[in-house]
Amino acid sequence: METISADYLVSRPPAEAKALARYVAYEQTVELPEDAALPQNVRDEIVGQVDAVEPAPGQPGASVITLSFNVRLSGLRLAQFLNLVYGNISIQKGIRLIDLRLPDSFLKAFPGPAHGMQGVRKILGVEGRPLLATAIKPMGAPHKVLADIAGQFALGGGDIVKDDQNLVDDSEDAFRDRVALCQEAVAKANAKTGRSTLYLPIVTARQEDVEARVAFALEQGARGILFCPFLSGIDAMRHLSAKYKLVMMSHPSFSGAFFSDSRHGVTPGILLGSLMRLAGADVSIFPNFGGRFSFTREECMDLSRRLRGPWGRLKPSFPSPAGGMRFESLPSMSEDYGEDTVFLIGGALLGKERTVEKSTRAFLDQIRSRFQETLCKPA
Amino acid sequence: METISADYLVSRPPAEAKALARYVAYEQTVELPEDAALPQNVRDEIVGQVDAVEPAPGQPGASVITLSFNVRLSGLRLAQFLNLVYGNISIQKGIRLIDLRLPDSFLKAFPGPAHGMQGVRKILGVEGRPLLATAIKPMGAPHKVLADIAGQFALGGGDIVKDDQNLVDDSEDAFRDRVALCQEAVAKANAKTGRSTLYLPIVTARQEDVEARVAFALEQGARGILFCPFLSGIDAMRHLSAKYKLVMMSHPSFSGAFFSDSRHGVTPGILLGSLMRLAGADVSIFPNFGGRFSFTREECMDLSRRLRGPWGRLKPSFPSPAGGMRFESLPSMSEDYGEDTVFLIGGALLGKERTVEKSTRAFLDQIRSRFQETLCKPA
Repeated sequence: METISADYLVSRPPAEAKALARYVAYEQTVELPEDAALPQNVRDEIVGQVDAVEPAPGQPGASVITLSFNVRLSGLRLAQFLNLVYGNISIQKGIRLIDLRLPDSFLKAFPGPAHGMQGVRKILGVEGRPLLATAIKPMGAPHKVLADIAGQFALGGGDIVKDDQNLVDDSEDAFRDRVALCQEAVAKANAKTGRSTLYLPIVTARQEDVEARVAFALEQGARGILFCPFLSGIDAMRHLSAKYKLVMMSHPSFSGAFFSDSRHGVTPGILLGSLMRLAGADVSIFPNFGGRFSFTREECMDLSRRLRGPWGRLKPSFPSPAGGMRFESLPSMSEDYGEDTVFLIGGALLGKERTVEKSTRAFLDQIRSRFQETLCKPA
Repeated sequence: METISADYLVSRPPAEAKALARYVAYEQTVELPEDAALPQNVRDEIVGQVDAVEPAPGQPGASVITLSFNVRLSGLRLAQFLNLVYGNISIQKGIRLIDLRLPDSFLKAFPGPAHGMQGVRKILGVEGRPLLATAIKPMGAPHKVLADIAGQFALGGGDIVKDDQNLVDDSEDAFRDRVALCQEAVAKANAKTGRSTLYLPIVTARQEDVEARVAFALEQGARGILFCPFLSGIDAMRHLSAKYKLVMMSHPSFSGAFFSDSRHGVTPGILLGSLMRLAGADVSIFPNFGGRFSFTREECMDLSRRLRGPWGRLKPSFPSPAGGMRFESLPSMSEDYGEDTVFLIGGALLGKERTVEKSTRAFLDQIRSRFQETLCKPA
């Protein structure tokens, strides 16, 4: 029997954590008390198994419990999988999902990122250095102003320009107008530079309108989108990635309650790392440590490893640290994350001192001073 | 300008909370620092406004901040709305969304529950008392055994029998076999009793398979489904409710990280009350206080008020307290929740002492002893 193995940090000493482990094993599979009358096959094949209960290293009074679940209970589907590993117990307290081991039969059911790091690099024709990304904002500015930001960023040599996730369109026509203008501005700049800057429009819409927006963006020449899976559905992202082979950039909006309580929830590494890669994100945005959000360095490194490390046949995804990154942050970010990273610089790049084009160039020069860039013909 | 008004409990005294309030107002709308160069129209119409900063009653060192946002920024869509009121700030700490006031122009964009409490009562032909619901389990039992539970519950006079959210089917055929058998068992029982017990199959599937499963269930004679919006998409639930006019029962699986940290996240009342009603749930399941989960009585009452109270043109939804309810809990639950409630009894009703039919009858007798039941012809 192939199993999904999961580690949870629980706020109980090992002596008490054993009973809790059994409770979780029953709650997450049959949702019945341990003493319920259960057929033997259900007890053997359906109820989760407790594999280990250990003291949590460096956390007195806490334990790590390891459970395994029949992979069949995931249905090899994302929604059912999340129900299995963190459905009902999410409503408890003091149970944090900290690690997962997924068998091949499960991983094989997911194509993962359509392009992955190497595919995105090929589209851009950029090797040897981190990529530079920015966001088009603010909401409320005329479409031409927004398109001008996109165009200037591309002229300055930037790699990925995405819509701000806060951009809202009053109608489908407004969406089309805005996306067409931004894509046109980037295409014009690309024609000048010979490069292949990517424009990724935000697609946040009613479920029944999502695919038409994606199709429109692709028709205009965009190669991907920005998507908020915690708003619009994690499995919706997987579906769009698999169906349209998009360059998929995921945004963590509305995901944060999973992290704020360090004794509960799901680690950033699993949620914004493993899960985003499984669901087809080529680039996963997350708040960098030291910025205006509260992730730790260790959490960011764990997240990056989960996106980039070997994992079945899944292509690696780019980590994209963001959230208040400044010009002065680049040296340390370069050291922390290395070349296979997308630096997402918002406000600092759109600042008032310089044009976006000049600012982009300055950021890129800073990146190039630390890495050996190789430009190839964009694919 | 119509606005969405939101209250947040923040872990800062009022003197510091003012700056935090302004930060949230900018972060959630333009995601730029306060001193960014912004056109006047963006400052006036797009940036959130700070309406009040007050000490949090009974919580020294904490404050309640009230912000208002141009309703246009919600796009009158669920996903964009959630991004607006709790998108990026979800990734902060110590900012809890505790109340919302939504203007008519926003509410009008949502049909809400297709049936509501009165509609569900008409289908059942039951007035004057709480409804009784149970779950079909465990996963791994033969389909005939599961169907037998459904049939016995209907014979015993129960109102709503739903699949356990943990039921997983190895194939679309297996789903169809199981749902057809359960619906048939309930239909047979209904033919005998002259009543109209509802069977609600769980629909958790890949996004591209969801509608086919719903259509199949309806073809078999089911009138609704059980759905997990935090697994399968909140807007997906709204879409299914609006398109198929289902009796929609929502399950809170994977929602719990929003609640565990009492200083952060979103209150159960907003997430499992207001939001579920907005997204079309006729019945919203939540963990009752005093059971094996950790909601407080106050949270459960707030949640119930949000589901049942007057709210624009939205039909009221049933609160469905669950999670370890026993026979002995019924008197106090009846007092706490009153007649417009769906009592969801799982394990206790499926216990080993009695048949499901007898157990159902015993629970109903207990309910009838406290309320004045009126049976009408089911619609």
